[in-house]
Amino acid sequence: MPSIASREIRLVARPIGLPQSTDFRLASNPAREPGAGEVQVRNSWMSVDPYMRGRMVDRASYVPPFQLGEALQGGAIGTVVASQDPAFQPGDVVSHMLGWREAVTASAKLFQKVETHGLPEQAFLGVVGMPGLTAWAGLNEIGQPREGDTVFVSGAAGAVGSVVCQIAKIKGCHVVASAGSDEKAAWLKGLGVDEVVNYRATSDLLGAVRAAAPKGIDIYFDNVGGEHLEVALEVARPGARFVECGMISMYNDTKPAPGPRNLAYLIGKGITMRGFVVTSFAHLTPQFATEMAGWIKEGRIKWEETVVEGIEEAPRAFLGLFTGANTGKMLVKL
Amino acid sequence: MPSIASREIRLVARPIGLPQSTDFRLASNPAREPGAGEVQVRNSWMSVDPYMRGRMVDRASYVPPFQLGEALQGGAIGTVVASQDPAFQPGDVVSHMLGWREAVTASAKLFQKVETHGLPEQAFLGVVGMPGLTAWAGLNEIGQPREGDTVFVSGAAGAVGSVVCQIAKIKGCHVVASAGSDEKAAWLKGLGVDEVVNYRATSDLLGAVRAAAPKGIDIYFDNVGGEHLEVALEVARPGARFVECGMISMYNDTKPAPGPRNLAYLIGKGITMRGFVVTSFAHLTPQFATEMAGWIKEGRIKWEETVVEGIEEAPRAFLGLFTGANTGKMLVKL
Repeated sequence: MPSIASREIRLVARPIGLPQSTDFRLASNPAREPGAGEVQVRNSWMSVDPYMRGRMVDRASYVPPFQLGEALQGGAIGTVVASQDPAFQPGDVVSHMLGWREAVTASAKLFQKVETHGLPEQAFLGVVGMPGLTAWAGLNEIGQPREGDTVFVSGAAGAVGSVVCQIAKIKGCHVVASAGSDEKAAWLKGLGVDEVVNYRATSDLLGAVRAAAPKGIDIYFDNVGGEHLEVALEVARPGARFVECGMISMYNDTKPAPGPRNLAYLIGKGITMRGFVVTSFAHLTPQFATEMAGWIKEGRIKWEETVVEGIEEAPRAFLGLFTGANTGKMLVKL
Repeated sequence: MPSIASREIRLVARPIGLPQSTDFRLASNPAREPGAGEVQVRNSWMSVDPYMRGRMVDRASYVPPFQLGEALQGGAIGTVVASQDPAFQPGDVVSHMLGWREAVTASAKLFQKVETHGLPEQAFLGVVGMPGLTAWAGLNEIGQPREGDTVFVSGAAGAVGSVVCQIAKIKGCHVVASAGSDEKAAWLKGLGVDEVVNYRATSDLLGAVRAAAPKGIDIYFDNVGGEHLEVALEVARPGARFVECGMISMYNDTKPAPGPRNLAYLIGKGITMRGFVVTSFAHLTPQFATEMAGWIKEGRIKWEETVVEGIEEAPRAFLGLFTGANTGKMLVKL
């Protein structure tokens, strides 16, 4: 059980505004022979997700910040090469949070065995992984969709948004989505979304959303923040629920951008706005996995992947999240 | 049963920014002899409330806008002078929404008989009326206070805020309040509030609130909006509940002011922010009245009134709400 070669991506500068490729550095760091209670894993896929931008800032938050000079972290799927823990055997497929590297050796406690049930293993970084749980739990627990509700989803062509749209359709909702290109809009239409606004093709987002949802919205699933949130408040119906999942439009702001000018609608319209981090719904994972597996088997949930190849391209994949380079889940194949 | 003389306050111009006395006009309009199913009422007290500012704007909202050239409306208490409805007798004390006038004749359906149980009748415009229900239902239903929670209340010396503070103390919470003068702060301290920030005496509201609530807050009861809301988001603990009751600091803005720059904390801290209008909790009125009457009898809820005399002074009373002229409930004695 020798050590195996591995390259990793380290954070070498804290990004200011949009991250630059020079904020990252490729480095070699072999995955050592496992000690007692450890496993050695070769990663096959790693995830890049918008929330990672927040961890690049040096501040206390719900997860500690990334450290300069160290490898980044994030969701990954790999295969056990060697194990010094009885729970794992070579060949086991595992999911874990030690991504941004080609191979890793660490405590067996940091790895979960994955039963793929015939799904491609990278789906466990997407539709049946963290983004899928985010969509499922956020929509159900906070949005509380009822048949006939109108649901507005921003960033709808992303890993989370595209699953939200499809679950909302399963629940009998009318779904209005926003996305950043005509290609994404067409894909979403193909998934059954009722109306799609290409927010990059209009200078009047409010007018476009009003036209798409003339009777207003009951649920807003927010991945974007900024102008989209202000528009959603404007078109919200009384009693609307706002699922605050992400505000990607603001993650690279160099100074904090002001919030919506119409927040007083919260009062007059009796709106509930609730933010969340997916870990607060981790206890629902078994229920999520069962329901999602059933929907996939029935062909009711589909997904798309945007794949970048090679660890050295991981920073480019990450940066692409902020320019809309991905349709569906952005992945790095290692 | 002749008509009786009455003066009323009409809205004659839609205010721009802070309302001016010239936006209002005193006019004579006798209360006619009641017809079948009507009662004739002489008002003894009327209420002025911040929410009325919203109804002076010509836009659809949860209540229709006031009409130019017509008498304003709002909570009032009066005594039946003459009745053509079997449910009411002369001498009955009634509450209704046809304030801003000295006397009125209207359908009996618009009046509710008040059993005062020894309380001064104007209390039914305050602590045991709409502002009391607003405080009680907003704190309980949205804030969901638990023993040991830290509750931050802005505009705490007002009719709603001062009741919120006292209920939070009854529930075993640590209460931090903001108010606009040292006199108001001293009054709140006398009610049992743990810490009071005079927001007009500091140029660093965030620092002052941090010092008053060093471990952060679990509930924010917002009557004010603006900077207070941004500060509350900053000091909120994970899972905090924000009760959005009012945003008086913004009601006179001539163009919509931007919202808080730190709304993304909703996500990382898992904050729930819910707005409401008291009418959505009207079904809880009996439970509220019973509990509040008990607390008053036990001396656990106290209140203050700021009284202006004469219908002609009602606009001044209303304007005073925006300059902090009131401690506790602002009332007009007719």
